[in-house]
Amino acid sequence: MADSHITKAFDVDLQDLARMVAEMGGMAEKQIAESVDALARRDARLAQRVVALDPQVDALQREIEERGILTIARRQPMAVDLREIVGALRVSNDLERIGDLAKNIAKRVIALGPASYPTQVIRGVEHMSDLVLNQLKQVLDAYARRDVAKAMEVWRGDEEIDAVYNSLFRELLTYMMEDPRNITFCTHLLFSAKNIERMGDHATNIAETVYYIAEGKTLADERPKGDTTASTAVPFPAA
Amino acid sequence: MADSHITKAFDVDLQDLARMVAEMGGMAEKQIAESVDALARRDARLAQRVVALDPQVDALQREIEERGILTIARRQPMAVDLREIVGALRVSNDLERIGDLAKNIAKRVIALGPASYPTQVIRGVEHMSDLVLNQLKQVLDAYARRDVAKAMEVWRGDEEIDAVYNSLFRELLTYMMEDPRNITFCTHLLFSAKNIERMGDHATNIAETVYYIAEGKTLADERPKGDTTASTAVPFPAA
Repeated sequence: MADSHITKAFDVDLQDLARMVAEMGGMAEKQIAESVDALARRDARLAQRVVALDPQVDALQREIEERGILTIARRQPMAVDLREIVGALRVSNDLERIGDLAKNIAKRVIALGPASYPTQVIRGVEHMSDLVLNQLKQVLDAYARRDVAKAMEVWRGDEEIDAVYNSLFRELLTYMMEDPRNITFCTHLLFSAKNIERMGDHATNIAETVYYIAEGKTLADERPKGDTTASTAVPFPAA
Repeated sequence: MADSHITKAFDVDLQDLARMVAEMGGMAEKQIAESVDALARRDARLAQRVVALDPQVDALQREIEERGILTIARRQPMAVDLREIVGALRVSNDLERIGDLAKNIAKRVIALGPASYPTQVIRGVEHMSDLVLNQLKQVLDAYARRDVAKAMEVWRGDEEIDAVYNSLFRELLTYMMEDPRNITFCTHLLFSAKNIERMGDHATNIAETVYYIAEGKTLADERPKGDTTASTAVPFPAA
């Protein structure tokens, strides 16, 4: 009787954590979509809203941490029960960082102002963010269902985002070389694209957490890394 | 007797955690110093060593997480004892991210190769990294001694790093506009400088953790944010 009471209390704790993580996930998706929407439409007011949402995301992460840690201390869960809570802490950490990255993009939108720039490069950024948003939706779904196979799909899918980022990186550098007037906005787009690429990394971290919860071990093989721009040097075309 | 036995076991856990965090801190300091050294001297071999150190830092973080969580589950600490462990988890998280940022700089060194570039801009990056390294040393010392006053000094000191970053950001954009041949390396230096600025943010996070451990609450007032480059637009000088 006492045992079933403890189990029930633990289940309530777990459900509350799951609800908070799902809420955070929804916020992070919103932040990604709106920050890139604001970038594409040069919408400073929308960008302001993305910035304004960030403290709520941060507060939710602290709440999840506090609730998770207290649950561990009170219920002393072991094995998969313990991993469930550690998993919620890890996922909320990744979601908080995604929110930060979206906020940084939104700040750049506010900086860039209303001046227009080539739609082609913006489309590249939008394409990347569509891919990342889909990855995040899929992995949050995999997390909610404890679906390891689906999580592994997301884990492998990050390579495509990295490939798009690599080609966008080169494209932006080329624009900068063609006309110095492009340099300021291309720099902000470069940082925005890098932010989106890193959001993709956080989606794969969440995939690794789903694996860890289910399997009780860390993914052994290194994820194929597709972002090679840290080692990209676009040669200046000979005059 | 049983109580003092439990207390002693808990103290051993805490000491082990403190030792592991200190070890991680030393590694992170080394990664910062060596990555920027490699950048200044165009030393690809040193950069390779920074990259190679990263898995050890990551492994140490996982070990701290595991040990910390198990200690919470086994010993059920409350109040300041619980915060000590949560604090170790948070600090190790920030140190892991600092290591990642240093690794990213090192990868850029490998990409840039041996070609030389203006020493003036490199000096700006070195100056920033000296400031950040000092902040990190101070805050790790504050953490080891639970010295809240010292931690608050670090917390306030981040503004100077942000100011140096802002001026470096403008300087690099100007170099890019002056000569398109500067664009590739200046882009990598921009990302490197941004990485160092973010290391500074992690040092202030650690300062906040020291405050949290001692005071049991989160720093209420927002830290003065000095990085305004997300809202920087350097106008192209009229031809």
